[in-house]
Amino acid sequence: MGIVQTVSILLILISWCILCYHSSKASEERSTHIVHMDKSLMPMAFSSHHHWYSSTLNSIKSVSPELSDRRNLGPKLVYTYENAFNGFSAIMSKDELEALKKSPGFLSAYADGEIIPDTTHTYKFLSLNTATGLWPASEYGKDVIIGVVDSGVWPESPSFRDNGIAEIPSRWKGTCQLGQDFNSSLCNKKLIGARYFNQGVVASVPDIKISMNSTRDTFGHGTHVASIAAGNYVEDVSFFGYAPGTARGVAPRARLAAYKVLWDEGSYASDALAGIDQAVADGVDVLSISLSYLTIDLYENLIAIAAFGALEKGILVSVSAGNRGPNFATLLEGIPWAVIVASGTVDRWFAGTLTLGNGLTIPGWSTFPARATVRNLPLTYNKTLSACNSTELLAEAPSSIIMCVQSDQTAEFNDQMSYISESNVPAAIIISEDTSILRFTDFPHPGVVISPKDADAVIKYASTSSEPTASIQFQQTILGTEPRPAPAVSASSSRGPARAYPGILKPDIMAPGVLILAAYNPYNSVSTIGSNIALASDYNMESGTSMACPHISGIAALLKAAHPDWSPAAIRSAMMTTASSLDNTRKPIKDMGRDYNDATPLDMGAGQVDPNRALDPGLIYDATPQDYKFRRTVTNVGKGAATYKAKVKTPKGSVVTISPKTLVFGNKNEKRSFSLTIRYKTYQEYVINHGSLTWLEENGKNTVRSPIVVSPAQPS
Amino acid sequence: MGIVQTVSILLILISWCILCYHSSKASEERSTHIVHMDKSLMPMAFSSHHHWYSSTLNSIKSVSPELSDRRNLGPKLVYTYENAFNGFSAIMSKDELEALKKSPGFLSAYADGEIIPDTTHTYKFLSLNTATGLWPASEYGKDVIIGVVDSGVWPESPSFRDNGIAEIPSRWKGTCQLGQDFNSSLCNKKLIGARYFNQGVVASVPDIKISMNSTRDTFGHGTHVASIAAGNYVEDVSFFGYAPGTARGVAPRARLAAYKVLWDEGSYASDALAGIDQAVADGVDVLSISLSYLTIDLYENLIAIAAFGALEKGILVSVSAGNRGPNFATLLEGIPWAVIVASGTVDRWFAGTLTLGNGLTIPGWSTFPARATVRNLPLTYNKTLSACNSTELLAEAPSSIIMCVQSDQTAEFNDQMSYISESNVPAAIIISEDTSILRFTDFPHPGVVISPKDADAVIKYASTSSEPTASIQFQQTILGTEPRPAPAVSASSSRGPARAYPGILKPDIMAPGVLILAAYNPYNSVSTIGSNIALASDYNMESGTSMACPHISGIAALLKAAHPDWSPAAIRSAMMTTASSLDNTRKPIKDMGRDYNDATPLDMGAGQVDPNRALDPGLIYDATPQDYKFRRTVTNVGKGAATYKAKVKTPKGSVVTISPKTLVFGNKNEKRSFSLTIRYKTYQEYVINHGSLTWLEENGKNTVRSPIVVSPAQPS
Repeated sequence: MGIVQTVSILLILISWCILCYHSSKASEERSTHIVHMDKSLMPMAFSSHHHWYSSTLNSIKSVSPELSDRRNLGPKLVYTYENAFNGFSAIMSKDELEALKKSPGFLSAYADGEIIPDTTHTYKFLSLNTATGLWPASEYGKDVIIGVVDSGVWPESPSFRDNGIAEIPSRWKGTCQLGQDFNSSLCNKKLIGARYFNQGVVASVPDIKISMNSTRDTFGHGTHVASIAAGNYVEDVSFFGYAPGTARGVAPRARLAAYKVLWDEGSYASDALAGIDQAVADGVDVLSISLSYLTIDLYENLIAIAAFGALEKGILVSVSAGNRGPNFATLLEGIPWAVIVASGTVDRWFAGTLTLGNGLTIPGWSTFPARATVRNLPLTYNKTLSACNSTELLAEAPSSIIMCVQSDQTAEFNDQMSYISESNVPAAIIISEDTSILRFTDFPHPGVVISPKDADAVIKYASTSSEPTASIQFQQTILGTEPRPAPAVSASSSRGPARAYPGILKPDIMAPGVLILAAYNPYNSVSTIGSNIALASDYNMESGTSMACPHISGIAALLKAAHPDWSPAAIRSAMMTTASSLDNTRKPIKDMGRDYNDATPLDMGAGQVDPNRALDPGLIYDATPQDYKFRRTVTNVGKGAATYKAKVKTPKGSVVTISPKTLVFGNKNEKRSFSLTIRYKTYQEYVINHGSLTWLEENGKNTVRSPIVVSPAQPS
Repeated sequence: MGIVQTVSILLILISWCILCYHSSKASEERSTHIVHMDKSLMPMAFSSHHHWYSSTLNSIKSVSPELSDRRNLGPKLVYTYENAFNGFSAIMSKDELEALKKSPGFLSAYADGEIIPDTTHTYKFLSLNTATGLWPASEYGKDVIIGVVDSGVWPESPSFRDNGIAEIPSRWKGTCQLGQDFNSSLCNKKLIGARYFNQGVVASVPDIKISMNSTRDTFGHGTHVASIAAGNYVEDVSFFGYAPGTARGVAPRARLAAYKVLWDEGSYASDALAGIDQAVADGVDVLSISLSYLTIDLYENLIAIAAFGALEKGILVSVSAGNRGPNFATLLEGIPWAVIVASGTVDRWFAGTLTLGNGLTIPGWSTFPARATVRNLPLTYNKTLSACNSTELLAEAPSSIIMCVQSDQTAEFNDQMSYISESNVPAAIIISEDTSILRFTDFPHPGVVISPKDADAVIKYASTSSEPTASIQFQQTILGTEPRPAPAVSASSSRGPARAYPGILKPDIMAPGVLILAAYNPYNSVSTIGSNIALASDYNMESGTSMACPHISGIAALLKAAHPDWSPAAIRSAMMTTASSLDNTRKPIKDMGRDYNDATPLDMGAGQVDPNRALDPGLIYDATPQDYKFRRTVTNVGKGAATYKAKVKTPKGSVVTISPKTLVFGNKNEKRSFSLTIRYKTYQEYVINHGSLTWLEENGKNTVRSPIVVSPAQPS
């Protein structure tokens, strides 16, 4: 019988998505380092940590007296951190760093590194409603404050209006920082804070000019993420007619505070750390971090360290898993104390509805950004043309709807579209097996993408009818289980186990992250028509774990409002033990990255978040930092006495023992402990088996589920 | 002293806009004729007029027994008319027609002829509001029925939803006629009737196939006109982002009945007459006719004859003036008993706002139909390029905003746009003096039109700055008095005097008819991008007297609802005596067709309709058919006793005498008569002089104004 390899009980397992490219831009000689200090060792003589750190830096200045140019007059302080993290960042030379290491209170130093950023019918898909469940129970997240550490915010977006929002809670300590094109009056009762941090990027490139020196979001990513978490109600929004409706965040009455740490000029961990540190000081309840830092070692991951500091202050931290899937162990980090969020699809399909002259209707994929009229036009299927891969070829094309085959042998979809838009062809039918096209929002000429299977009937009709015609109706939004059940795990969502700490199952949970409609920078190009017309929109559709993360941030805010006494760990437990492993056809959730096979916990953690079930989870695993053993304690958060029985779905090749098998609670808030033992019978390299432990309430409705994954050691 | 040439008191003057091209399609041998019969001569033996007409036709069949082919088996009845007009239409040979002329009851016969068709912030421009005036007084036109004789209706348009509309009045006798793609359940409490008439077009081309054999509007014109008159409230409509807001008809609670008489296959007077005849039978209160019939002689104008029949049944008939302006006497018809409507501009400007790198902002004209992003792009002024009139020339153009001069020496605006869209130029600034461009809604590439005056600063900046840049913000709607005061008379609006009867001043009144947003056929192309992308919209912007006419129809419906006892002549009097000759800068209304000189009554009749003033006009000229002399009777419709004094603005070269000069009314509804004498001092060919007679209420607010026009005989 083999030994236990990697066994995980989901609750206590947390993950990480910040991909960090260690900066190579910083000068070899002098570069920014972030220094972790032991604050308990500060001498009494100093009035503040800032004072102590300045003095420490001053004391090491003397080691390089021979340097005379102005930039090298000793180390230069960039930030002081004292909330989520204790220490500072500074520009210094290697010699100065070496001297610093000998200073009292020094714990560790990290070279600053670049971070990268990893959208709304989703509330309905998540069954949030005004009649019952988490929305009314939480008063829509009233008074909970979500801090968004990202690229800033577009404050004039209607998603950040404060109609219907009560006065700002007196506990709030944040401010609306004045900056370029950002008057401090731009904040309101919805957007209660706005701050920006770019000393890190400025330190890395000394002569840099910051093009928008304020919290204003020149990118759109921060605006998008913030409005997903807690955007106010905005009627009649759409992406060029697709996904039309009333936009709203997951927690439409929660407050938002924006911390801008991503810059057009570069994005650095020192700035992100400063943003998180300030958010903790300002008093946020939830931190939403859709960023990646490519560090595998947890003890070198500044954001992981800052997230632990935030957790200690009672703040739930939600972090995107990253977009490096679908391969095994592409989730590089895996912060145990943060909720690491995988990305799934939504039950929504954007169509150009293709109708042939014979009446056959096919919901083709299209996001062509205008209401093109393609009505009863001639339809041509011509094998010679169908590669659609050159201007010369398409110059011969008739003024009719043509059919293009997209394959390895032809041009890419984008190139085919470009050739077609330069021709006289009014519309094209693209035949493709590549489902990744179904995530493209740029569709520069009227047309639809259909599968080779659907294409058979179209080709047959076009080839046999004497005067074949077709129509395409654009701007169609189709909801439900067709053509694909939802959610399915997005191919690009990073997969566990996390390289940082493979002993803990990551990601934790899945939320909607594919083609999410949310607010955006209204001046940025988000779509094109033809080759030279760029289009903008107040609302943009984006995909990635960056969009999944703020869904969890919003749900966490709702749970915090409904249960003000719950710890971050309790909130996380409630979301995870009630998550669903089934899609909207009541079958196991599928994985888009592996030909729609069943998804595993390494793809989606506990499964798709179910906010209404999380409101009343029965039991919670209220983990403490000491809780990283196989003995677990659960707390009864139901209404009173309750009995739960263990039900185990055993991973293949294992034997799982639970002791005791029944947990009897006399009252609410009683705690009971149990142990779980896994014996692994056969060792088979690269085979991952999974099962689950579910506590079923006797004579009650609650089920408290945790996945168990048994896997070999991670591949290198 | 010369003699009176053409003298008109506006009230009793009515006009006409249906341009009729006498059909040349009908076969020489057998063609449709419309026959006017004296119904009083019907022998008692006949049970119905239909029976009598059939019998009459049968009796003349014998005159051509030698004809043997099936189509020539004697005359064939097309329609029987018995409401607005007494008679029938039938396909017959010349011989048969000659025989018919000898039949008892025959009055006259007319060869059938083709008719042609001549657009919502306008309610606000007309000062209609929910607080005071005609809207609340009329309950928004509740229960008044407007019949629209046009190209049918798109019943699914949200403008025809019946939310907020009460049950159908029991007096309504119309139906919802079943037809192709038109289920009779498509009518509702708003769209209460739908009928179609194409026996005339079918008779004219025997083997014709009617492509949409129902009241469904394949064109969009009828849908547009109907929704202007009485469309329901529809939130968030626009023309590709321009003119955004809540659409509503002038009488949003009035009912609509659609009579389709315009067909893709041709449009004939026999069908229009059948539509009007049926509308009268169905019980409409107002008839809205935006059609032209090119007949000068009133006694040959079937629509004029039918309108008289409608008037006799108490129905107000509103007819568009036609779009043959701006020359003198381009208003061919001029039905005295209908309200003939001229078209004016609206206080609205559609812009691409051009902002130069130096901060200068110019509201250029643009209706580019998408939200193009043109932000801080290089700006080029290159004289060699500026003709923008060939593909070769523009192939040399840099990828920057270019400037194109539009003049007699260069290509037309549309051609320039086509060349630009085929280039790599992201946007263009078109410099043009031609204000007619400002009515184009097709704008296929990002760009703006600016005047040569505004262009000077742009050229100077582009020529002198080292790195000139510009931005354009599209989808801008600017309201108010800039850049042109409104209303101004549209250049194309047909001008009086009416050739049919120049002794009567026509048009009667002016209403908004330039770039009017209203419902449309949602599948028709209404705009384009580039050379091969056609776009559709649920709401379209159209211009013409066709759009002005339903504004008057809607206002007439409101007045009918507010004053159920008012006759059509009273409603017409109220609208005309209270109309305004001033624009929104309180200066005389200008004429776009004559370099913005002051407009005259021959351009705009009494002036711009003022619905709230028409609600309470003080006195009304309640004309009867006998009232075509210079002695006039007015009725006091004010609250009680009132005294009015005459104030005359004398036309140049004339002496005007009013007797008596004071009208004293003891009670409401009392009548007083007066006579008006005009002595014309000098005869000067082709000089038209105008003035007015206004009755001013003593110690009251009412002013009852009628223009007086003294003109030479019409030019031939």
